Amino acid sequence: MGDLTGLFSPDRIAVIGATPRDGSVGHAITSNLLASFDGEVVGVNPNYEAVLGVDCVDSLGEAGDPDLAVVVVPPDIAIAAVREAGESGVKNVVVITAGFAETGSEGATRERELREAAREYDLNLVGPNSLGVMSTPVGLNATFGPDDALDGNLSFMSQSGAFITAVVDWANDQGIGFKDVVSLGNKAVLDEGDFVEAWNRDEETDVIIGYLEGIDEGREFIETAREVTRNTPVVLVKSGRTDAGAQAASSHTGTIAGSERAYEAGLEQAGVLRAESVQELFDSAQMLANQPLPDSETVAVITNAGGPGVMSTDAVGDSRLSMAAFSEGTLESFRESLPAEGNVYNPVDIVGDADVERFAGALDTALGDPNVGMALVLSAPTAVLDYEELAEATVELREEHGKPVAACFMGGERVAPAAELLREAGIPNYFDPARAVESLDSLAEYREIRGREYDDPAEFDVDRERVRELLDRADGRGDNRIGVEAMGILEAYGIPIPAGEVVSDPAEAERVAEKIGEAVVMKIVSPDIMHKSDIGGVKVGVAREDVYDAYEDLVTRARNYQPDATLLGVQVQEMLDLDSGVETIVGMNRDPQFGPLLLFGLGGIFVETLEDVTFRVAPVGGSEATAMIDEIDAAPLLRGARGREPVDEASVIETIQRLSQLVCDFPEIVELDINPLVVTPDGATAIDIALTVEQ
Amino acid sequence: MGDLTGLFSPDRIAVIGATPRDGSVGHAITSNLLASFDGEVVGVNPNYEAVLGVDCVDSLGEAGDPDLAVVVVPPDIAIAAVREAGESGVKNVVVITAGFAETGSEGATRERELREAAREYDLNLVGPNSLGVMSTPVGLNATFGPDDALDGNLSFMSQSGAFITAVVDWANDQGIGFKDVVSLGNKAVLDEGDFVEAWNRDEETDVIIGYLEGIDEGREFIETAREVTRNTPVVLVKSGRTDAGAQAASSHTGTIAGSERAYEAGLEQAGVLRAESVQELFDSAQMLANQPLPDSETVAVITNAGGPGVMSTDAVGDSRLSMAAFSEGTLESFRESLPAEGNVYNPVDIVGDADVERFAGALDTALGDPNVGMALVLSAPTAVLDYEELAEATVELREEHGKPVAACFMGGERVAPAAELLREAGIPNYFDPARAVESLDSLAEYREIRGREYDDPAEFDVDRERVRELLDRADGRGDNRIGVEAMGILEAYGIPIPAGEVVSDPAEAERVAEKIGEAVVMKIVSPDIMHKSDIGGVKVGVAREDVYDAYEDLVTRARNYQPDATLLGVQVQEMLDLDSGVETIVGMNRDPQFGPLLLFGLGGIFVETLEDVTFRVAPVGGSEATAMIDEIDAAPLLRGARGREPVDEASVIETIQRLSQLVCDFPEIVELDINPLVVTPDGATAIDIALTVEQ
Repeated sequence: MGDLTGLFSPDRIAVIGATPRDGSVGHAITSNLLASFDGEVVGVNPNYEAVLGVDCVDSLGEAGDPDLAVVVVPPDIAIAAVREAGESGVKNVVVITAGFAETGSEGATRERELREAAREYDLNLVGPNSLGVMSTPVGLNATFGPDDALDGNLSFMSQSGAFITAVVDWANDQGIGFKDVVSLGNKAVLDEGDFVEAWNRDEETDVIIGYLEGIDEGREFIETAREVTRNTPVVLVKSGRTDAGAQAASSHTGTIAGSERAYEAGLEQAGVLRAESVQELFDSAQMLANQPLPDSETVAVITNAGGPGVMSTDAVGDSRLSMAAFSEGTLESFRESLPAEGNVYNPVDIVGDADVERFAGALDTALGDPNVGMALVLSAPTAVLDYEELAEATVELREEHGKPVAACFMGGERVAPAAELLREAGIPNYFDPARAVESLDSLAEYREIRGREYDDPAEFDVDRERVRELLDRADGRGDNRIGVEAMGILEAYGIPIPAGEVVSDPAEAERVAEKIGEAVVMKIVSPDIMHKSDIGGVKVGVAREDVYDAYEDLVTRARNYQPDATLLGVQVQEMLDLDSGVETIVGMNRDPQFGPLLLFGLGGIFVETLEDVTFRVAPVGGSEATAMIDEIDAAPLLRGARGREPVDEASVIETIQRLSQLVCDFPEIVELDINPLVVTPDGATAIDIALTVEQ
Repeated sequence: MGDLTGLFSPDRIAVIGATPRDGSVGHAITSNLLASFDGEVVGVNPNYEAVLGVDCVDSLGEAGDPDLAVVVVPPDIAIAAVREAGESGVKNVVVITAGFAETGSEGATRERELREAAREYDLNLVGPNSLGVMSTPVGLNATFGPDDALDGNLSFMSQSGAFITAVVDWANDQGIGFKDVVSLGNKAVLDEGDFVEAWNRDEETDVIIGYLEGIDEGREFIETAREVTRNTPVVLVKSGRTDAGAQAASSHTGTIAGSERAYEAGLEQAGVLRAESVQELFDSAQMLANQPLPDSETVAVITNAGGPGVMSTDAVGDSRLSMAAFSEGTLESFRESLPAEGNVYNPVDIVGDADVERFAGALDTALGDPNVGMALVLSAPTAVLDYEELAEATVELREEHGKPVAACFMGGERVAPAAELLREAGIPNYFDPARAVESLDSLAEYREIRGREYDDPAEFDVDRERVRELLDRADGRGDNRIGVEAMGILEAYGIPIPAGEVVSDPAEAERVAEKIGEAVVMKIVSPDIMHKSDIGGVKVGVAREDVYDAYEDLVTRARNYQPDATLLGVQVQEMLDLDSGVETIVGMNRDPQFGPLLLFGLGGIFVETLEDVTFRVAPVGGSEATAMIDEIDAAPLLRGARGREPVDEASVIETIQRLSQLVCDFPEIVELDINPLVVTPDGATAIDIALTVEQ
């Protein structure tokens, strides 16, 4: 996407549909612009010569080359207005007008036309159905909301205009400011990826925050955000996390709900900090906007109140942080300076009679310890403690040591002036120790993101033609579900499978079994029978002499279970010694927003019940595949829990990557499960496969 | 515990150690008392005739029969003061003085003496090491904290005095009031259970809240709180939840940390709502103190802002609540009254141009729907909406319908007067929709607690003598770890075990195997070998002719593994058809605070890795045993997931109860694991046992 400077820092703005009619959107926007905008404003409305004292012209062509046009005319003429903007060389357009895709199919058609017009003239178009945009450095408030935002270093995008009005009113009260604010509206042209990219280049934006209900171009967003989040933290609320929420989001903006699992994986891969609530969004954003990143995830708690000290320690235990273990020098210094009733270990209890000097001394000592990454100053009100002086000392020491510090000065009125001092210095103060710790945690989370290395997906040498052929064969059969008969697809991509063949008569079964060895595994092959083992459709350890009968028995069982099932035959497979193995699952389904979503987890009968699985958007590199293994609860089972020999983890990592390549190469595969993928100390073997292709 | 009326509503108070010395605790308490106490105050201090204008006598005997004595004299004379109180017939004593158990072994001795003195005179003693007590109806502030509390219907106990000063200052600012406040101190005599019991009888206390670092008498607390929470909600922060936190709690108050799992189970069984943070504590308490309980867990969201509506729906999805499904009449009414762009389904979007009338109409309709248990009024600021009028309408409708209503009027200054109106009517207002939903969730949680039926533990007919004998036999051997050789303990308590015997030579093994049947299971028996299967110490399906060799092999393996291991022989056991079974674990360990803590979960190799287990303090009734099964993630595996036959759940429930009876009958059993307890459609069978007894 192009340069958005003209959108946020225009010299001249035309309001298409400016009107003096009180209570109208055209009036609200014009008057908001007039109230604070540094540049020039011109109205476009053939019905007036002037609006609110501003010149009003008949058409955009007469408006004197504005950098930004704000469109508030009715939907049926909004498209013509956008075209006119393109014709007149205006590059930036904000379409406030509603009545597009959010209203149904007629509106959707209108929105497509709008998009085409914008594309034709290469416009930076915000909306439609947008509250507007703000940019505080130039006093720009091109919204119809009731408040101007304060100056600040957060840039904020929201798919809900109402949320913007609520946030700005609240933020003004809290002293929280913004650089740019964008109401994304229906995102016909500019979307979250464009703004994230633009704000990354903007020196005045230190943190990007947003409220989203959907991300249309999931994979592209991952690629963009991954670059951005190396430099600029991005904190998002993506709502529709729960089933009920997803349904509500869908009826709110017509967002097609991608799966929450895809969003979770995608935002994680994008390096986005995901907030679950509005409170978390702003707590994280303020900390990231105002404090340095820590060198480690260790925190020192300095407190005059033992109980709250314990609470903060619990909060540290709940987070990715850990309580710093002080160096011997630090302990020595605490032993010398603190009263005997105190506690020199972390949380450091400097006792209720501590004055500011003792507090500041202890904080100074802790921050000077190389084992300490950050600190929490945690205090209950006492007669000997001057909160304002403590605030001043805290601010000073935070700057002197260059380490992050959070504050939890507990209390009400007594704390207010100190809290104001802290806030001005970028140290938010919370009554609840848990919130203060969580805000430090977001620094540690972003530190981890900054440190990530994204490796490119490996390209394995594979046999694409063979897969093409196997998929075509199934296609020719008119069936979109393929089972164990297509194990060759895995073989073609270098994923180990047992020796075996699909046969269609008992004598052939015997011939194949003879080639394989002592005993074999036999499975019914039918696209209509999902869970073969549940109907006795799998026989393990069939001796050579029993193969004939086993074949007939399997077919009979299948027929009894479902008389009209398509039977493709019986798979006669090598029997592997799997005693030392762990059954895992590797799979993929295709998400409407993010594309192929890989799954890895504990396999067998535990998949559905325990749901010990994790997800990533494909393609994945080796480090992402490795992370998938790390994330499942059963990981220790792979690593030799209970005296077992560790399995060959590298073979799992490779299998995940090979599967990633397969599903990226063949978009017609919409679903694929290898279950179980049995992993032993000698490697991983795919025992069964089920896949669905698009026809 | 006796009546605490005299503690909280005394007519006359003696301050033992009253002094005019500024900055001293004795001065602070006297002046706090004088500032607002309705009754009479007398000082006890031979050095003064009067303190701060109050009469000062030489000894308590001259103090005119006070109902309450507050002790602020140094620790070495505090015990004498307490004795004097007992002698003079004072029933209630608050010991502010520190320097007892929290300071080490000398202090602990002093505290024991204090406790004995109090017990001798049957005193209601708070502390020592307490900040004091408050009770607002009589203006009692017998603390040395800086603020008086506001009147209210919460009663609050805290193991941290600093936390009380912080909370009172903050609560005054928030308009939150208290009936009684108690700083528990070291809990030498009165503890959390006593106050919970007393406040349950107190008509002015509607909700009991507390901050605790430990509960000394766990089982007693469960029994007490279980009764209390039928009438009065109890919300507690129990800190030391995490490992780091538990360590910090222990160093703070010398609390011996019981296991978090025991606290989790115990507080759940006690019917206590457990808050994880200060914010959650007060959000829950305020809602419970001011609003009725809902009839169902369904919530209607009425909003003028689609985005926040989606956020609130996510929060509902995260909670135990569900989005109400409106009746047809309600939908019809919304269809008639709301604009076409609105959403008549839940969350109800009444659109940004909604005025108070539309808002109130929609809320009225929703609250009138019998499918709706409670409502959230969720609003972004708009030009057409008067927040104060909306607050008034919300308050009115809440009262009219008698259903709980939470408010999320989003914004800053614009909201303040409306938020004040709501607060006065007991409707807290939050900026974050998630917090508003969580506060409703606490009503639903307490509703569930109120509806509980606690059934008495069943008493099974068991053979105690046999267990006694088996335990004595192990004791005679000088070993405190007992294994499969003691399966008879389970049999004696009616828990099914496979047929079998422990033998000590291969020929005997053959004789036993002959009696059992075709094939047997053989296991090495040694208290020194914990995980038998890991060293090949278990053989399954041993045919009759192989039993001799198998015996010798097992013994060799054990010798190789650990040459000095005590070998008690080999268990020759019936082989059960366990293909259709699920391996579970049932166990117990003894917690220092709560006593026998039962465990149930997924067994076998998954126990340690997946930790799919749950806990209850014994004894348990049938409903608690049933809840244990419900709580594990693997429960569907027991109930016939993946086309399997459901197992005999009743047999598991009975096994848990029988084990509960066993561990309550024999306190010397400190640890016991039945792993696996294999459960099939035909019942549960204990395959192996390991237990540790106290010697």
